[in-house]
This record gives sequence, C-alpha cells and structure tokens, in this order.
Amino acid sequence: MKKITLGEVPLVVPVPIVLVGSYVDGRANFAEVGDVAIAGIKPALVMVSLAENHHTMCGIRAAKVFSVNIPSTTMLDRVDACGMVSGRVADKSAWFDVVDSGRLDVPLIRECPVNLACELLREVQVEHRCVLVAKVVECQVDEMLLEDDGGRRAIKDLQAFDPILYGLDNRYYRIGDPIGEGYNEGGKICANPVG
Amino acid sequence: MKKITLGEVPLVVPVPIVLVGSYVDGRANFAEVGDVAIAGIKPALVMVSLAENHHTMCGIRAAKVFSVNIPSTTMLDRVDACGMVSGRVADKSAWFDVVDSGRLDVPLIRECPVNLACELLREVQVEHRCVLVAKVVECQVDEMLLEDDGGRRAIKDLQAFDPILYGLDNRYYRIGDPIGEGYNEGGKICANPVG
Repeated sequence: MKKITLGEVPLVVPVPIVLVGSYVDGRANFAEVGDVAIAGIKPALVMVSLAENHHTMCGIRAAKVFSVNIPSTTMLDRVDACGMVSGRVADKSAWFDVVDSGRLDVPLIRECPVNLACELLREVQVEHRCVLVAKVVECQVDEMLLEDDGGRRAIKDLQAFDPILYGLDNRYYRIGDPIGEGYNEGGKICANPVG
Repeated sequence: MKKITLGEVPLVVPVPIVLVGSYVDGRANFAEVGDVAIAGIKPALVMVSLAENHHTMCGIRAAKVFSVNIPSTTMLDRVDACGMVSGRVADKSAWFDVVDSGRLDVPLIRECPVNLACELLREVQVEHRCVLVAKVVECQVDEMLLEDDGGRRAIKDLQAFDPILYGLDNRYYRIGDPIGEGYNEGGKICANPVG
C-alpha cells in the first residue's frame, strides 16, 4: 500500500451526525455537528467541538448546558438544513417538535430517537475552536429501540437507530451490516500475543 | 414516540473505531479507541479521550505526541484484540507492520488506510478520563483511496475506506450506502425557513 501525504488534514472517518441544542435568547437553536464523541462511560461524558461564533455557542456559554440529539436518516433534509443556515437568520425551532428536558434547561428534539441533556464541565479553546467536555445528566431513548436483556433494558442493534454518518467526501451514509462482536473477534490473536 | 429515561448514559452512536499509538519505553503500543472525533478542520484538530491508566497514555504523556490509525474491516480481529489486552502484558507491535512517522516520533500502522501524526496541545482531566486535544501535523492516506477532482486530490467515498464502526450493543458494523449530499439535502427547508 503506497501512502500519499496530505499534510494537516484531520481525517477521522466516519463522522456521526448529531444536533447540538441550546436556548439562545429564549429560542431553541440547533447546530448540525459531526465533531462529537463519547468521552467516557463512567463518568458519563461527551466531548463536542464547536466554532466560537456558532449561534448555539452563545446559549451554551450563557447557561453552561446543552443537548445532543441523535437524528435518524428520515430527518436528513432538516438535519442538513441546520448546517446550511445560522440560527441568527432562521428559526430552527420551527423545524422540529421541541420539548423541554425535565432535568436541565435545554431543548430536546422529540423526533430524534436519542436525546442527551448535558452539563458543561470544561471548555478548551484552540484558536476559534471550542472543545466542550460535558457530563450527560440524562439520556432519553425511543422505547422501540430498547429490548429486554434478561431483566435489564439494553439497546437494540445500531441499524434500528438508523443514524446518519458523514464522510469528508461530503456525502451522508447510513449504517451497514454487523460484522462481529466486541471482546470476541480478537480472541485468537490474544491467545497468541506474540503474533 | 415514547421515550424511556436511562439516566447517565453517553449514548452517542455510531462510534468510529481507531487505533491510537505511542511509543512506551521504546516499544510501539496501540489502544483501540472509539472516543475520538475531529475537533476542527482549520486548524486541523482531533480530540481523543483515554483512561488515565491506559498503557498508551504513558507514552503520550512522556512525548506529547501520538498517532491515530484508521483500520478497515479486514483488520477487525487485530483491532478487537487491541481492546482486549494491555500493552503491559502483550507486545502489540508484533501484530502490525509498524513504521515511523517521518514528522513526529510516533508509530504508524502501515496496513491502516489512514495514519495521522498528532501533537498534543491540551489535556483536560475529569476523574480518570483524559481528553486530549491535538494538532494533526501530517495525514497519510492509501493512494487507492484518493481520486483526481479537477486537478486536486480528493478522497473517495467512505465505502472505499471500509471503516469499522461500533455500537453500544457491543457489535461492530461496516458503513452502509450513501444517502445524500452535504449542503444539498437541506436546500428546500432553508428556502422555506419558517416551515
């Protein structure tokens, strides 16, 4: 495999697409964000990177809380629209069924199968980018995506969530087929750790 | 859609799987990491969250550099194995064709289609989790994944990369079909911003 050097390109793919929400001057606003990931399970942490001048950032800096809403592919047009126009010029709250989180003062999108209410813990700024580290105070999931797993609630497979992915080729994708199980596929390799 | 409250669960899905590399006491080591995302395009930033006691963290803290290697599904057994056993007990450098980055003192995995050499800029610690914000100094990509786009090099579609995804259902997945184009799908919504 011959490699080509591209220079300073943060090519981490695929990119999961979420809608980050906050109230800005009393109105719910949502940014389309791919710069997002889990930052820990216990404690329950997420990390999000936003541009300093994002309209949504105004609300986050004021209230120190935000929501992360995970859309499904049926919402693609509205999700893409959130990335095309700023909340300064469009009222995105009219595009969704917005409900209040019971726990924090953040707007949740009812039609998204997953909603997280997050409390900002830390902010790191590098040039105009703000990396936010936040605690997930509450997670709400569509009941159709949960199943009973020996008495406890477990999430169904990822295809049931039907999430939106993004590539740096400027295309959106859906999730594909399952290919294996965690802590299982590697068993043979671990049994022979010297290779 | 009825929602069920799950409490403090950082359910951000799907999770992209990468191998984070560093030299620990002179030997290349790799951690399987899903807590990773782009943190900015210009400047080229990535964010990674690791547990403080990860063996790979020892090397990162010592040298302030690390690599991000994006594997394809054909490497699933070795990737999963990296998450099953610590570099304290297994020599993972023997599982891969490891090459030195020309730019930074970080180990790259040759068979991964994408390698990033990263310089640590900031570290934020929350309990035992360390969120690292780093600059991508160099990105190397398999030449088969690049195409000519009117005189400049562009990346091919995400399916050519064949990346590994993970769900919190403990299954790995492949990427699915393209479903739309960025800054295009939302056109109709933006043209009718109040509706």
